[in-house]
Amino acid sequence: MKDVSSLFAGFKVFRANYFGQRPQLFENLNAKGQKPKFLVIACSDSRVDPAILFNAEPGELFVVRNVANLVPPYQPDSNYHGTSAAMEFAVCDLKVQEIVILGHSQCGGINALCEVTKGAVLDREFITPWISIASDACKHDHGGDEDKNRRVEQAAIGNSIKNLRTFPWIAEREKAGELSINGLWFDMEQGALWAFDPEKDGFCLMEPSAQEA
Amino acid sequence: MKDVSSLFAGFKVFRANYFGQRPQLFENLNAKGQKPKFLVIACSDSRVDPAILFNAEPGELFVVRNVANLVPPYQPDSNYHGTSAAMEFAVCDLKVQEIVILGHSQCGGINALCEVTKGAVLDREFITPWISIASDACKHDHGGDEDKNRRVEQAAIGNSIKNLRTFPWIAEREKAGELSINGLWFDMEQGALWAFDPEKDGFCLMEPSAQEA
Amino acid sequence: MKDVSSLFAGFKVFRANYFGQRPQLFENLNAKGQKPKFLVIACSDSRVDPAILFNAEPGELFVVRNVANLVPPYQPDSNYHGTSAAMEFAVCDLKVQEIVILGHSQCGGINALCEVTKGAVLDREFITPWISIASDACKHDHGGDEDKNRRVEQAAIGNSIKNLRTFPWIAEREKAGELSINGLWFDMEQGALWAFDPEKDGFCLMEPSAQEA
Amino acid sequence: MKDVSSLFAGFKVFRANYFGQRPQLFENLNAKGQKPKFLVIACSDSRVDPAILFNAEPGELFVVRNVANLVPPYQPDSNYHGTSAAMEFAVCDLKVQEIVILGHSQCGGINALCEVTKGAVLDREFITPWISIASDACKHDHGGDEDKNRRVEQAAIGNSIKNLRTFPWIAEREKAGELSINGLWFDMEQGALWAFDPEKDGFCLMEPSAQEA
Repeated sequence: MKDVSSLFAGFKVFRANYFGQRPQLFENLNAKGQKPKFLVIACSDSRVDPAILFNAEPGELFVVRNVANLVPPYQPDSNYHGTSAAMEFAVCDLKVQEIVILGHSQCGGINALCEVTKGAVLDREFITPWISIASDACKHDHGGDEDKNRRVEQAAIGNSIKNLRTFPWIAEREKAGELSINGLWFDMEQGALWAFDPEKDGFCLMEPSAQEA
Repeated sequence: MKDVSSLFAGFKVFRANYFGQRPQLFENLNAKGQKPKFLVIACSDSRVDPAILFNAEPGELFVVRNVANLVPPYQPDSNYHGTSAAMEFAVCDLKVQEIVILGHSQCGGINALCEVTKGAVLDREFITPWISIASDACKHDHGGDEDKNRRVEQAAIGNSIKNLRTFPWIAEREKAGELSINGLWFDMEQGALWAFDPEKDGFCLMEPSAQEA
Repeated sequence: MKDVSSLFAGFKVFRANYFGQRPQLFENLNAKGQKPKFLVIACSDSRVDPAILFNAEPGELFVVRNVANLVPPYQPDSNYHGTSAAMEFAVCDLKVQEIVILGHSQCGGINALCEVTKGAVLDREFITPWISIASDACKHDHGGDEDKNRRVEQAAIGNSIKNLRTFPWIAEREKAGELSINGLWFDMEQGALWAFDPEKDGFCLMEPSAQEA
Repeated sequence: MKDVSSLFAGFKVFRANYFGQRPQLFENLNAKGQKPKFLVIACSDSRVDPAILFNAEPGELFVVRNVANLVPPYQPDSNYHGTSAAMEFAVCDLKVQEIVILGHSQCGGINALCEVTKGAVLDREFITPWISIASDACKHDHGGDEDKNRRVEQAAIGNSIKNLRTFPWIAEREKAGELSINGLWFDMEQGALWAFDPEKDGFCLMEPSAQEA
């Protein structure tokens, strides 16, 4: 039996709020079209929703979500490349100013990748090739088992940033100062947000700030 | 210059709310892992965020977002199939009970597809092949120009539902009554939600209900 | 031991939201002062918070809350009249356009009044004289026990409206069309809102509308 | 012309949320009655709504709101004492554990009091006697004009705390450790929350914490 009634109940709240009580936002978004500043590439994980994490309003974030928030390398063949198509639309058409790769702790996709590297067999039709996008992040990790997933989750963000720059229309805009690339990692246990710092080639705690923590 | 400070400001709200004031939800989600009931395949459009539209809490929706909320057909080769990998994880690992294809009015991807069908040239590296997934929805539309985009947006949802059933592990679970497939279409001008009714082979207004409208 | 830490945790959310992420509202409210359109006279009951019930933003509602949302009659002596002082400030200084008396089901104050009328002894220092403001509403009710509280809750709103008009600076403004007086009653079991209709001398269901219910 | 349609629109959101999508809270509150932990005595000012400031849920805060969040002294005569009646109900019937006096910057009532002390004539029917409850707070202030309002706003909170203890059923419960009394002051310009510290006989910044500020 279908049961999507909870979605309808939620939509009633959204409708009463954005269309009934505060209609201006959608009137503008409808009349002028979307003009998001951010392209966020995030994981499909139900616990890591960009709109919830960033307390966003409709219209603020153009969002791609896939397993493990991965960016594949530039492959301009005629195959279906969902993530690359969304990037192309966001960068070339909507002209977003910021690309954000948003990773997180306890990522199931990255965990599967780590298990494979330790010798497990993962014979899945689509998951196996998909997460191989980040296999370098795993292979180059020479730390111990403790914190391995965390290191690979963060390295995979770096890997996706590298792949972003293989797209010529991203690399050019970045060079021209029209587009910035950001890597963020959400620590679900601590409720903390870390940002990739290219100068340190590592992640720095942003929220809560060091003083607050 | 990078400017993601508005994301950090939004994260502060999220953190103060979910980790500071109401920590139970994430304590559970961390301890027990995610157990979403829904896989939502939605558009990347910034105005159509499933968490906002369905007033969802973290942990409720496993979400794929790509241009025009498309599901490609089953192609188990070794290429990168981001949408299919997320579907595999949601259905086979997380065992979601409901798949929801969420389309919407004013869809840029569907609009591009309609323009192409009218004779426009769309020579885009990734967008062109990606939206061709829905080209049947466009070709089979024989109505006039008025409302054409709306009809194609809805037909493309039907098309994605058809493609969903080409995945054997989806078709089997659906037959076994373990999984339901739903098509929803969000009307951004009216703030209305329509659902695909397989018996009528068409969409019915769900919210606001006919009486309220 | 004092434990107001949950209030501090809630304030962190408010601060992160209104001062961190969306500071414009309070910048305006600070610079220009408050300019509420509504004076709401509501019950102190923790389940009937006007800001929550009306999904209000800071600055929208000037609020008096006392037991049973009562308005005492005009008594311009030199005693302390908290409700009257707030009304004077709202009407004469802030020049609100609407006064709303907001009652509700399951009101403890009205229930006490009904018990007294049935013969119970209520010998409370402040509650007993305070709720006597509404004793006419109770005395004039000649219906049966069933629904008595509801009828008295609604009649007490009418009684407070009558008292409002004993204040000359309210009566004058109402006559001049500068100020309107409204009675609302919240049904906590049904989640419904009723409004006093002076023509029918009774309450009408407003939300959900008759069609929806 | 009456125009409370924005209240109805807000109520739709509340209803869709608390009755449609998440009905458990009100089902409990209806079945078991209210059991708030806090009595909050706050100003009627539209910018200082306790439910918004403390991000509270229905059922958490029993609230009195009057001009300048004042507590009159214990006067058990037969006059109407709205604030005292609400305190009696909260403390003796609901048995709240915490009383919070919540003051704030830019308080119109306190400002009027300061003006009077400087020699202005304030001949208002109800406001003048009402705010005289705090006149000691003003008279005993010997600082300069700068920051005078802030000092008096805070001293008036101390004054109200003193008055709270003139109520025997409050003093007894406080002595017995069953009830705590708290003074908070909200700085609207800074978005900061200060708490009265009886040991220092002054207010301390609580949020943001000193490290964050």
